[in-house]
Amino acid sequence: MTISAAEDIRALLKQSADEVNLALDARLADLDPCPPTLAEAMRYSLHAGGKRLRPILVLWCCEACGGDRDQAMPSALAIECVHTFSLIHDDLPALDNDDFRRGRPANHRKFGEALAILAGDALLALAFEILSEDVSDQALSVAMMRELSTASGGSGMIGGEVLDLAGQSSEPNVDEVARIHAAKTARLIQGACRLGGIAARAETSRFNALSEYGHALGLAFQVVDDLLDVTGNMEDTGKQTGKDADAGKQTYPRAVGVEESRRIADDMFERAIAALAPLGSAASRLTTLARYVVERNS
Amino acid sequence: MTISAAEDIRALLKQSADEVNLALDARLADLDPCPPTLAEAMRYSLHAGGKRLRPILVLWCCEACGGDRDQAMPSALAIECVHTFSLIHDDLPALDNDDFRRGRPANHRKFGEALAILAGDALLALAFEILSEDVSDQALSVAMMRELSTASGGSGMIGGEVLDLAGQSSEPNVDEVARIHAAKTARLIQGACRLGGIAARAETSRFNALSEYGHALGLAFQVVDDLLDVTGNMEDTGKQTGKDADAGKQTYPRAVGVEESRRIADDMFERAIAALAPLGSAASRLTTLARYVVERNS
Repeated sequence: MTISAAEDIRALLKQSADEVNLALDARLADLDPCPPTLAEAMRYSLHAGGKRLRPILVLWCCEACGGDRDQAMPSALAIECVHTFSLIHDDLPALDNDDFRRGRPANHRKFGEALAILAGDALLALAFEILSEDVSDQALSVAMMRELSTASGGSGMIGGEVLDLAGQSSEPNVDEVARIHAAKTARLIQGACRLGGIAARAETSRFNALSEYGHALGLAFQVVDDLLDVTGNMEDTGKQTGKDADAGKQTYPRAVGVEESRRIADDMFERAIAALAPLGSAASRLTTLARYVVERNS
Repeated sequence: MTISAAEDIRALLKQSADEVNLALDARLADLDPCPPTLAEAMRYSLHAGGKRLRPILVLWCCEACGGDRDQAMPSALAIECVHTFSLIHDDLPALDNDDFRRGRPANHRKFGEALAILAGDALLALAFEILSEDVSDQALSVAMMRELSTASGGSGMIGGEVLDLAGQSSEPNVDEVARIHAAKTARLIQGACRLGGIAARAETSRFNALSEYGHALGLAFQVVDDLLDVTGNMEDTGKQTGKDADAGKQTYPRAVGVEESRRIADDMFERAIAALAPLGSAASRLTTLARYVVERNS
């Protein structure tokens, strides 16, 4: 990516992230009936400086199919709640035992384990509350709920976390890595793209294009994440590096080495942009985003 | 309650619980895409011998408004998933640190903390998957999702758990106990009754009657739970007793003594059955159920 292209996509991402943050702030004002400590713990992680990749994918995929950003915003907020819930629980001592997240103390280090568990739980419930209250069309609301619950549940992201933990007791194996990454990371990123398609009422060929794009992009994203744990530093990534190897995790660099992992990420990137063909020029921003994801250093 | 009335209600409860269990088994056959260890941990707690009070309330409240049991079953299963999720997380070392549940090792004692956290998460997601996939009417699906997400979320059950934990550092106080019980226990039991009303498309006066009944019944249920922790034994209750006082929990017996607590439970029972007036004789089974809840010893 040229320097100016990288600057352009960064500016576009910042603009969309700002919009997501504004909408999130407005929605979180409704958290008032929650106990204040719980609302504080939920907001702490929601506002921890995340890149908002998943909500931005919802918005951009919706727009790539001719939909309106407003139609997509509730599911964009809902998927960010699910993503934040997963980070809080993943960081717990019983799971990945991470003390830092995005350069700040992890939720359980700041609020204690009990409140972190409950804040994660409440964010997962909030995601479905948002879909039930803020989506004006009932058919879309149900379709979004179905997509988000399956993408995040036992056969999706949460199931992937189980595989990830179980994989720590066996030798790195490329097939097992692929299976873990597909469920743990790619399914929710694919879910973001599919939610955008649902919001736009995309026709089947376009919806399937987004779905395939999201799957490949999600895999590419996680390979790069694995690589950053080996080659990145805490200043850029905001979290401790080298932890995957310490924990005995199933990762591409551990299974096939850094160079081959890089090649796999590039291959996934190519698959992601090839999938966008049915969308034509409407998908140019999604192509640039995929390149940015593969070339990122944080 | 006379001995024969108690036998009658037990037989009715068993019959409905059996139906719920059958429907739950059928639905859980679809857990196949989950990692097997995760599905096992989810099933372990779902099939731990619970009384199925909440799903039975969904079914009976639906029928008391002239609705059909089949319309109510998906939300009955969904609320049992939410209830089971809450038990798994409540028992965790960071929360109530209970080693036993219904006479068997708690989920985290059987499967370890990590899997217990994730099994709880997956059950919460599954509840919304069921509502999105199994309810044939979209308007009802959205209304049920809204009811269940608010009843279980930060302003409902999960918020109540936060208040419960925070209350352990202050002296027992009757107002605080009432606030904790309303959120932690009564909101989901009320949610069960409201889900039944939604399933039956109950008119407003009947829906409000069910809602008020559920609130009072939920409060009565928790006062009796508090009392059983003082006066019950592990053989009947299936869990360690005397734990509330050890943990410094806010309970009615600790705030106002056993006798006054008994009086409050009876008062809540009276409120519950008075609320049912608009339903007439269609609510007789709900009246008997309330009496059973208040007089139970396990």
